[in-house]
Amino acid sequence: MAKPSGSNGDDQSATDMETQKALVDIDSCQNEIDALNEKASEEILLVEQKYNKLRKPFFEKRNEIIMRIPNFWVTAFVNHPQIQLDESEEDCLTHLKKLEVEEFEDIKSGYKINFHFEENPFLKNEVISKEFHLGLSDPLSSSTPINWKEGQDLTKKNGNAKGRKRPHEMGGFFSWFLNNDDPCSDEIAEVIKDDIWPNPLQYYLMELDGGEDEDAEED
Amino acid sequence: MAKPSGSNGDDQSATDMETQKALVDIDSCQNEIDALNEKASEEILLVEQKYNKLRKPFFEKRNEIIMRIPNFWVTAFVNHPQIQLDESEEDCLTHLKKLEVEEFEDIKSGYKINFHFEENPFLKNEVISKEFHLGLSDPLSSSTPINWKEGQDLTKKNGNAKGRKRPHEMGGFFSWFLNNDDPCSDEIAEVIKDDIWPNPLQYYLMELDGGEDEDAEED
Ligand SMILES: [Ca+2]
Ligand SMILES: [Ca+2]
Ligand SMILES: [Mg+2]
Ligand SMILES: [Mg+2]
Repeated sequence: MAKPSGSNGDDQSATDMETQKALVDIDSCQNEIDALNEKASEEILLVEQKYNKLRKPFFEKRNEIIMRIPNFWVTAFVNHPQIQLDESEEDCLTHLKKLEVEEFEDIKSGYKINFHFEENPFLKNEVISKEFHLGLSDPLSSSTPINWKEGQDLTKKNGNAKGRKRPHEMGGFFSWFLNNDDPCSDEIAEVIKDDIWPNPLQYYLMELDGGEDEDAEED
Repeated sequence: MAKPSGSNGDDQSATDMETQKALVDIDSCQNEIDALNEKASEEILLVEQKYNKLRKPFFEKRNEIIMRIPNFWVTAFVNHPQIQLDESEEDCLTHLKKLEVEEFEDIKSGYKINFHFEENPFLKNEVISKEFHLGLSDPLSSSTPINWKEGQDLTKKNGNAKGRKRPHEMGGFFSWFLNNDDPCSDEIAEVIKDDIWPNPLQYYLMELDGGEDEDAEED
């Protein structure tokens, strides 16, 4: 390691004192920079909160309109390249009438995804939620326990004989929903929050263009 | 794929028209959300620009103070765990008197790192800069060509016999500086911009705590 220049003989203590004084000056300058950084972060958070509030009524209005379209959400999910549903999950999600993504007030701390179901043969729950608390020193996620109707537990139906061409990369929608092992790298949750929720229409419309999906089946 | 309910018989065209109308309504709602997103981004950019301006005089003042401390920047660089310098590079960087990181006005588009040298046995340049233009469809970086003094080209001295215990993970400081093959994943540039520049004092002071570095050498 190179040594400070002039660090020999009689100048030693004068040099040290000059360096010490400069270090104190840098530190106090750095404190002013840090205070500005903190003010910048607070101001940006206020902007984000303001726009979250301004966006909210449009997201609510969008959800009202979406409920007029049969199978909107299941179609958007099926068409998303990172989401894989098996046949019974797809049947179940035809009853998903409303999706909501809510960022927590301080935004960086986490978010919550609500899945609202109409009356259906699979779930007793009207709403199931998965929420992520990522601002904690020990980040965690949690999910609403699912009340399956008799014999309809879809997490026990994976790999059944119904025959499906698609690979199950995500290991099942409800298995994903109920798994809270690794909240910081939940790719499906991030797809829903950052990809589908900001603009679900583009994924819904993908299907209408046809192409990759298998032939339509009559239910 | 499940089909929209009611999509048979006489209701077909009424259902289609209702869906088409709903899709148009979602699209117009989405346009209002997109416009809000854009306004939010613009407002956040203004906040970032405002604080960049407010921070600038403190960064300049900090640089003035730093010049009172011999070997400040080389020490901060040597102490940073992701930066490896060989002995001749370290000698050369003892003449680095000023470092500057400038974000471009629109911030996301890129940044420039300036290295100011005092008169030294290695480089003829007083300032060498490396700049990153990352907002382009084809991102690029560029570096000032280095005018080496006779026989002092440090990019040709790697692996010489001077003997150095440290591994050369970064493949040489000046090789890094001159390499513009992969501007989007330049880890050393990011270390300088996001780690050293925001708070160089913490890396300078690491050395004073001693420990990991090899024994001090007299120049
Ligand atoms: Ca899919
Ligand atoms: Ca180091
Ligand atoms: Mg030093
Ligand atoms: Mg459908």
